[in-house]
Amino acid sequence: VFHGAGFTVGGMAKGSGMIHPNLATMLAVVTTDYPLEPGEAIDFLRPAVDASFNSISVDGECSTNDAVVLLASGEAAIERTPATDAELALAIRTVCAELAQQVVADGEGATLLAEIAVSGAASAPEARAIAQRIATSSLVKTALFGRDANWGRVLAAAGYSGARFSPDRAEIWFSGLPVYRRGVALAFDEAEAKARLDRAEVTVRIHMHAGKAATWMWTCDLTEGYVKVNGSYRT
Amino acid sequence: VFHGAGFTVGGMAKGSGMIHPNLATMLAVVTTDYPLEPGEAIDFLRPAVDASFNSISVDGECSTNDAVVLLASGEAAIERTPATDAELALAIRTVCAELAQQVVADGEGATLLAEIAVSGAASAPEARAIAQRIATSSLVKTALFGRDANWGRVLAAAGYSGARFSPDRAEIWFSGLPVYRRGVALAFDEAEAKARLDRAEVTVRIHMHAGKAATWMWTCDLTEGYVKVNGSYRT
Repeated sequence: VFHGAGFTVGGMAKGSGMIHPNLATMLAVVTTDYPLEPGEAIDFLRPAVDASFNSISVDGECSTNDAVVLLASGEAAIERTPATDAELALAIRTVCAELAQQVVADGEGATLLAEIAVSGAASAPEARAIAQRIATSSLVKTALFGRDANWGRVLAAAGYSGARFSPDRAEIWFSGLPVYRRGVALAFDEAEAKARLDRAEVTVRIHMHAGKAATWMWTCDLTEGYVKVNGSYRT
Repeated sequence: VFHGAGFTVGGMAKGSGMIHPNLATMLAVVTTDYPLEPGEAIDFLRPAVDASFNSISVDGECSTNDAVVLLASGEAAIERTPATDAELALAIRTVCAELAQQVVADGEGATLLAEIAVSGAASAPEARAIAQRIATSSLVKTALFGRDANWGRVLAAAGYSGARFSPDRAEIWFSGLPVYRRGVALAFDEAEAKARLDRAEVTVRIHMHAGKAATWMWTCDLTEGYVKVNGSYRT
């Protein structure tokens, strides 16, 4: 829930688990009392969805049907201005981001939520490709399950994204801890790295030094629990 | 080993497991006593590699370095003809296919080798895209681990490959057992399906009824063993 100046935005979502074999659904409803006109909701919802529900991955599989709905009652007794509209946009973005993160953290077998942050990419599509390839890499996701700051797997995934960059210039951090810089494996305290990854929310940041594009994705770890849920559901 | 008329083709390979964290390698050596001229080997090896080592996936991850080498001693005392050249091509293709299948069957945590066979696709690139998306789908691969003829996951993966086809025309078989035909879930004996999938080698065939292109890929199942190998290697 986001409390704006004179209005409120709330939301709820059900996660990406299968409710029945062959039927996977993600449903989210965002509500507000902000006085929107008919047809305006999509202009606020679409950018918020791009930066939230379209930036998450549990296992690289597409759901057969997803829906995000914005309901506006118009009950808030406030004067609309460009400033209140901007605050509404922020509120919807914030609520959508919170819900999307909860969907990932609640992913099948997940033990942590990981933000894959990419910066310094040569272009926006390449930043996206790098983030997606890292966020869907089974080797990166099993390393996160093992709480191991395995920068080699991150760099390899970035490499086979097809994006232009030089490993001799890239830098990698795990939850703020620098582990790789411009072709050099940094000496770091492994216990410290493990401790930083042994949390409910972690970050993997890679800076490409190839341009100015940046993006992020949220994903979870790949665990034996995931295999159990998706492989042993008949027994 | 393939015994031709007056010549022999042999081969050996080491699998796709990591020999050290951050270093994954696949190495294969194919040998023959066939009298090849210098520079000719690549013409025989390349098509064989495309139909074998470039048609396998264990976990969708690219290895950091792979190599397939063909060594020809020229010791075979035979007269070369177009017919013996064609037999050599077949021999090399056969040996490469056997080695590639062994690499997959030996994949981390794998309990079975699965051939994903796609036919009736609208174009060759679309056939390839369908086969790849099915062969790298975590949901398909965990279902195979569970020995479940889950055609819904196969059809969904084909769907989000982006290839053109209609689910109302497609057909799916698991190890020869028809389970889905032109929009209809067929009634099949689940125990029979489970028995057919409880083997070291299984097939998943999908016929798209959208054209004439066909291809295949070899993959393995996704198991708790895979997660253990790749997630718990530090403990």
